[in-house]
Amino acid sequence: MAIALVRSTALLNHNLPATRYAELPKPLPLRRGGVVERPVIAYEAWGELNAARDNTVLLFTGLSPSAHAASSPVDPKPGWWEHMIGAGKPIDTDRYFVICINSLGSPFGSSSPASIDPLTGERYGLSFPELSVEDIALGGREVLRTLGITRVACVMGSSLGGMVSVAYATLYPDAVDNLVSISGTAHASPFAIALRSLQREMVTSDPAWRGGHYPAGQGPTVGLRLARKLGTITYRSAEEWQQRFGRERMQSAEHLGGDFGPQFEVESYLEHQAHNFANVFDANAYLYLSRAMDEFDLAEHGDGSLSAAFARCKLRHALVIGVDSDMLFRIDEQREIATHLQATGCDVEFHEFQSIQGHDAFLSDRERFEPVIRAFMARLQG
Amino acid sequence: MAIALVRSTALLNHNLPATRYAELPKPLPLRRGGVVERPVIAYEAWGELNAARDNTVLLFTGLSPSAHAASSPVDPKPGWWEHMIGAGKPIDTDRYFVICINSLGSPFGSSSPASIDPLTGERYGLSFPELSVEDIALGGREVLRTLGITRVACVMGSSLGGMVSVAYATLYPDAVDNLVSISGTAHASPFAIALRSLQREMVTSDPAWRGGHYPAGQGPTVGLRLARKLGTITYRSAEEWQQRFGRERMQSAEHLGGDFGPQFEVESYLEHQAHNFANVFDANAYLYLSRAMDEFDLAEHGDGSLSAAFARCKLRHALVIGVDSDMLFRIDEQREIATHLQATGCDVEFHEFQSIQGHDAFLSDRERFEPVIRAFMARLQG
Repeated sequence: MAIALVRSTALLNHNLPATRYAELPKPLPLRRGGVVERPVIAYEAWGELNAARDNTVLLFTGLSPSAHAASSPVDPKPGWWEHMIGAGKPIDTDRYFVICINSLGSPFGSSSPASIDPLTGERYGLSFPELSVEDIALGGREVLRTLGITRVACVMGSSLGGMVSVAYATLYPDAVDNLVSISGTAHASPFAIALRSLQREMVTSDPAWRGGHYPAGQGPTVGLRLARKLGTITYRSAEEWQQRFGRERMQSAEHLGGDFGPQFEVESYLEHQAHNFANVFDANAYLYLSRAMDEFDLAEHGDGSLSAAFARCKLRHALVIGVDSDMLFRIDEQREIATHLQATGCDVEFHEFQSIQGHDAFLSDRERFEPVIRAFMARLQG
Repeated sequence: MAIALVRSTALLNHNLPATRYAELPKPLPLRRGGVVERPVIAYEAWGELNAARDNTVLLFTGLSPSAHAASSPVDPKPGWWEHMIGAGKPIDTDRYFVICINSLGSPFGSSSPASIDPLTGERYGLSFPELSVEDIALGGREVLRTLGITRVACVMGSSLGGMVSVAYATLYPDAVDNLVSISGTAHASPFAIALRSLQREMVTSDPAWRGGHYPAGQGPTVGLRLARKLGTITYRSAEEWQQRFGRERMQSAEHLGGDFGPQFEVESYLEHQAHNFANVFDANAYLYLSRAMDEFDLAEHGDGSLSAAFARCKLRHALVIGVDSDMLFRIDEQREIATHLQATGCDVEFHEFQSIQGHDAFLSDRERFEPVIRAFMARLQG
C-alpha cells in the first residue's frame, strides 16, 4: 500500500511509461546515517540479460536526467543518450543488457525528498536522510540484486554519473569488470563546490522554498530557474556560445527599460532551459543531489588517500574521457582518475577531447564520443 | 541647493573624505537618450598637474570600486590599487597627475540611480536614464573640462575600466596620447552577457527589489549577495581556489542538515565578499552598470565594423594586458584589442600573463603587473 503510494507519486511527477520500479526488500541504510525504510529505485532497461548473466551495462545519470536514456517500444520518446544506446549503436543492445538507474534522491521515481514517506504518508521533504554519491551507487547495486545479477560487464556514467561509477568500482570491486567515466571526478573541486553552493542558495533564498516545506507543485521555481541558468552556463563553454549566439539580439526584445528583461539570444536560450527544468524538478531533491556532489571524496575509502581508495578497484579495462573546455569537471580531474586507475594495473584508455561543447559535450558531440565508446564496448567482449 | 543634496547623499552612502565632486555646468545628454539634468561626477586625484598640463593619467574603475584607488594625506585608507599609484610607484605621482573617476551610474558620489534627482528631490531609481559605457567615458571627459585639461597622457582601466578606456580613445582621439587596457573588451561576449544577465535576475527576483522601488537602505541585499558571489566566482580561477582552499572545511561548519548551510572554506570566503558588497552597493546602480557592460559594442562607432571603430584612435603607445585564466574577459578579447590597435599604426605592447588569479589578477598579482606598468609609464615620458 505504502509502496503503491510512492509509485503513483512518481508517475504523477513525470510521464515515463518505460520506468520500472525495484522495490527493495529491506530498509536501505545510508552512508551518512539515516535509513530509507521502504526503498524504491526506478530504472529503465534495454536489451536482454544473457544466459551467463555477464552482459550487463550499468549506467548512472547526471544530476538532472531521469532513467529514460533511450527510447523503447513502450516509450518511443527519445532518451537523453538516444544516439548512444540501442541495436547497432555504440552501446549495442543486441549484445548488452543496459540498465539506467534513476538516482536515489532524484524525483523521477526513486525514493527521494519528493516521494512519499511510507511511514507518514507525507512527502519526505527535508526528513529524507542525508544523501551521498555512494548511496546512489548502492541503489544501483540493489536494483541488480533484485534482478539476480551479481556482476556487471561495465559500469558507466557522465558528470554525477561518472562520480557514482568510480564510487561503484571502488565499493564493489568484485562486482564490476570494466568502467567508463566521462567528465566525472573523484572529489568535488572548490570551484565546483562554490558554484553548486551558490545554486543551492538561489533555491533556498526563494521565499517559496519556505524552509523546505513548500506544498507539492508550489515549490521555489524562481530559485530553481536561476540555479538552472547557472548550471547551463557552466555546462557549456564561452567558445561555443560565441559561435552559436555571438551578440545576436532576440527578435522579441523590448527596448531597454526598467524591467531589465532579456535582450540577447543567449538570454532567451537560458530562459528556455531553465523554464523546462524548474517545471519538472523537485527543489529539495535538487538540494540533496547537489550537496551529495560537493561532499563526495573518494579518498574517504582510502583513509584519506586517493591512491589507496582507487587501489581497491579490480577493473580490467577503463575508458576515461574528459573535455578540455569543461570548466566544471576539469580535464585535470579526468587525468587524475586515469592515472590512479593505471596505477592499479588496470588497462586505461584516456581521451582528452578538444571539444568546444564543455561539460555537456557527451550529450551533443557525437562525432568525438560515439566512435571511442563504440570501440571500447566492442573490445570488452572481444 | 539641489546639488548640495546630491553631495550629502553621496557622503551618506560612503565615507570617502578625499572624494572631489565635479559639478558639471550643463545637463549631460546620454548616448541612448535621456539627460542627467545637473550632473555630478565624483573623483579622486593624486600628484600635481604640470605647467604644460600634459601629465594627466585618467583612470577608470571596474564595476564595483569607488574612485579611492590610492591613499592620500586626506584619506590614508589604502585604495583598491594602492601598490600601483603613488610617489615612486609604477604610476608615479611624482611625474603624473592621476585622476580616478567614479563612474557615472556608480553609487559612490557620481550621479546615479542611488543619487537624488534635483528636479524631484527623490532618488532617481529607475528614472535614471539608460546608461552606456560611452557615458562613463563622457563623465571622465567632463571632469577634465572642469579642470581645464584638454588632453591626457594616458587613459587607463581594468575590466569595465578597460572597456571605458578603449571607448574614450575612440570617442576622443585628439584628447588622448596613450592607453593602458587591462582585462577589458571591445564588446561583451555572450558568455559574459549570460553571467551578468543572471546576476541581474538574482537582484530583480529578490522580492525586496520591489520593481526597483525599494526604500533607501532596504534594498534587495539577498539578491545582491547572490549576484556578488557569482561575480567573485568568475573573477578568480579554479586553479587558484584549488591551491587556496582545496576541500578545507570551515571550523564552524555545522553538521549537514536541512538548512543547507556552508561547509567548506570556499563558501565562507564567498559569503564574506558578498556581505561586504551587498552592504554598500546600491542595487539599481548595479543593474544599470551591469547592463551597460552587456550593451557595449565598440563596433557601433564604426558602422558595425570593429576595425573601422578602432581606426578612429590616434594613440601613440598602447599597453594591452590579459590573463590566460580570466574566464570573463578572455585572453582572445585582449588579443583582439591589441591587434586592432596595431592596425592603426599605434605602437602596441601586448602581454598575456600566465597567472592563476583570473580576471582580478590586476588587483593581486603584483609580481607580473607592476614591472610591466612601471616600464610602460616610464617610457611615455622618455
